[in-house]
Amino acid sequence: MKILITGGGGFLGFKLARALLARGTLDGQSIAGITLLDGAFPAQLPQDARLKAVTGDVSDPKVIAGVCAADTAAVFHLAAVVSGAAEADFDLGMRVNLKGSKLLLEHLRKCAQPPKLVFTSSVAAFGGDLPPVLDDRTIATPQTSYGTQKVIGEYLVNDYSRKGFIDGRSLRLPTIVVRAGKPNAAASSFASGIIREPLNGVVSECPVGLDTGVWLLSPRRVIEAFIHACELPASAWAPGRVVNLPGITRSVAQMVEALKKVAGAKAAARVVYKGEARIQAIVRTWPVQFETPRALAMGFRADADLETLIRDYIADEHILVA
Amino acid sequence: MKILITGGGGFLGFKLARALLARGTLDGQSIAGITLLDGAFPAQLPQDARLKAVTGDVSDPKVIAGVCAADTAAVFHLAAVVSGAAEADFDLGMRVNLKGSKLLLEHLRKCAQPPKLVFTSSVAAFGGDLPPVLDDRTIATPQTSYGTQKVIGEYLVNDYSRKGFIDGRSLRLPTIVVRAGKPNAAASSFASGIIREPLNGVVSECPVGLDTGVWLLSPRRVIEAFIHACELPASAWAPGRVVNLPGITRSVAQMVEALKKVAGAKAAARVVYKGEARIQAIVRTWPVQFETPRALAMGFRADADLETLIRDYIADEHILVA
Repeated sequence: MKILITGGGGFLGFKLARALLARGTLDGQSIAGITLLDGAFPAQLPQDARLKAVTGDVSDPKVIAGVCAADTAAVFHLAAVVSGAAEADFDLGMRVNLKGSKLLLEHLRKCAQPPKLVFTSSVAAFGGDLPPVLDDRTIATPQTSYGTQKVIGEYLVNDYSRKGFIDGRSLRLPTIVVRAGKPNAAASSFASGIIREPLNGVVSECPVGLDTGVWLLSPRRVIEAFIHACELPASAWAPGRVVNLPGITRSVAQMVEALKKVAGAKAAARVVYKGEARIQAIVRTWPVQFETPRALAMGFRADADLETLIRDYIADEHILVA
Repeated sequence: MKILITGGGGFLGFKLARALLARGTLDGQSIAGITLLDGAFPAQLPQDARLKAVTGDVSDPKVIAGVCAADTAAVFHLAAVVSGAAEADFDLGMRVNLKGSKLLLEHLRKCAQPPKLVFTSSVAAFGGDLPPVLDDRTIATPQTSYGTQKVIGEYLVNDYSRKGFIDGRSLRLPTIVVRAGKPNAAASSFASGIIREPLNGVVSECPVGLDTGVWLLSPRRVIEAFIHACELPASAWAPGRVVNLPGITRSVAQMVEALKKVAGAKAAARVVYKGEARIQAIVRTWPVQFETPRALAMGFRADADLETLIRDYIADEHILVA
């Protein structure tokens, strides 16, 4: 089978590609090829004949036409302008997150068989005046352009699936912790930064207070979720194609405490508070606590605890703890 | 002030224009001009120097650029491909209902002052596995492309308002009964047809059963709602820019009974049942009962009863009861 990963040069897209190559199969079929689409790629791509990297913009019709082969069987649509950037540049967010997703859906309609599509939505679908604990019946009320564009993507994926053009599945991702690499323009960037930078011996300036709660999921669990979402039969998705993924709620203080347990007090002391009103304003609108009975019944899993999550990160990214 | 009405040649758009001209003011300001945009217009437009009719497609950038004057202060966006047509021709619905709305929003962003925008959404935002009584906390789960496109429009209106580009207000309209004129491609067309055609001495074939419930609102009340929605201050719309309008729930049997009381048994006998699976399949997914505390608190009103609604229709449309 042929697979397309948009945002395939990003942290999660690239990790997903490696996981798929290691597995060798998806949905019971042998993987013949994986096309990664992104604006840029890490210097070192795995040497694997099945892997093809295409550099281009997801909102460019020619680029999308080029990567949507007629026999594409599964697509993971991860490409997006992140929350902070989509808020700072409205037109950019609309172009990549909305026009790009719509273009992709239109091209996938032309495939020989309706391909499975896993669409990465976000906890940013929720915001504003929220109940203390959100659940599967909470209305999506995004308070950012990023969240709005993700929710619109969900509705499109749902309707294209209902029409039989694709077989779509949208996952509302918690904040992914720990992301490897550099800080990015996501307003949630700090949640990985306060663990990643101290482990690298670098000070991390935390823009939000110690009591700030984060609804989070590890890279391991989210890659599992992508693959599981794709392999579930369409019938498992009734009545709708979107699900809130499970996660765990932890405060910044708890994250620093877990870091201390795993890597010592010296590492934990590298987290310093430096309030940033712009980030606080966005993060304040995000939900912190969820019940996710639907996702759990569908077989999606949360992390067991924060210390394991940090240790997994150290192992997966070959971190030499500073 | 300058006003734009998209779908201004349609039943509601045209009625709204006449109501505004008769009022002379909107939002406390004198109405200097009303531009009606539509694909076609009734033969007889009122002779009024303030009124301008533009024939064109809402999804054509040049047309939209031409009707969005920089000093446009209020817009009523009624233009849409109706439910049955958007389901039969997916691309047409996406072009007019989604691309058209987005184009309009983009052009309104360029106005000197953020214009007020009243967007007509629909009860078709809801569908599928619904509670017996819907309320302001019910998630939008459209089961048609029309409903999906309307919900996406709501999210866009909300985000463009949040960003301060426009000052938008989305109304989820019940089925409007009685619409004047001819049957249209809306799956709800029968709800007006079973009253309108018998009053004209014509047999009306009802495609759904006698026990089918309809959540409905009269043309008088909806025109009131458009104007009220526009005149409410932005603060009245917190926390979000969309509201379920009030309505009343009546079965086909109750509608025929009210017709009998107003126009006699001979008129009522002109309603004959002729089941139509395609219409039933769409209508079956629509909600029938609502509680609308938010709309009522905001000052929106439902109809008192069905007989008054039919008598108002006869008076407003100068019907000579057959």
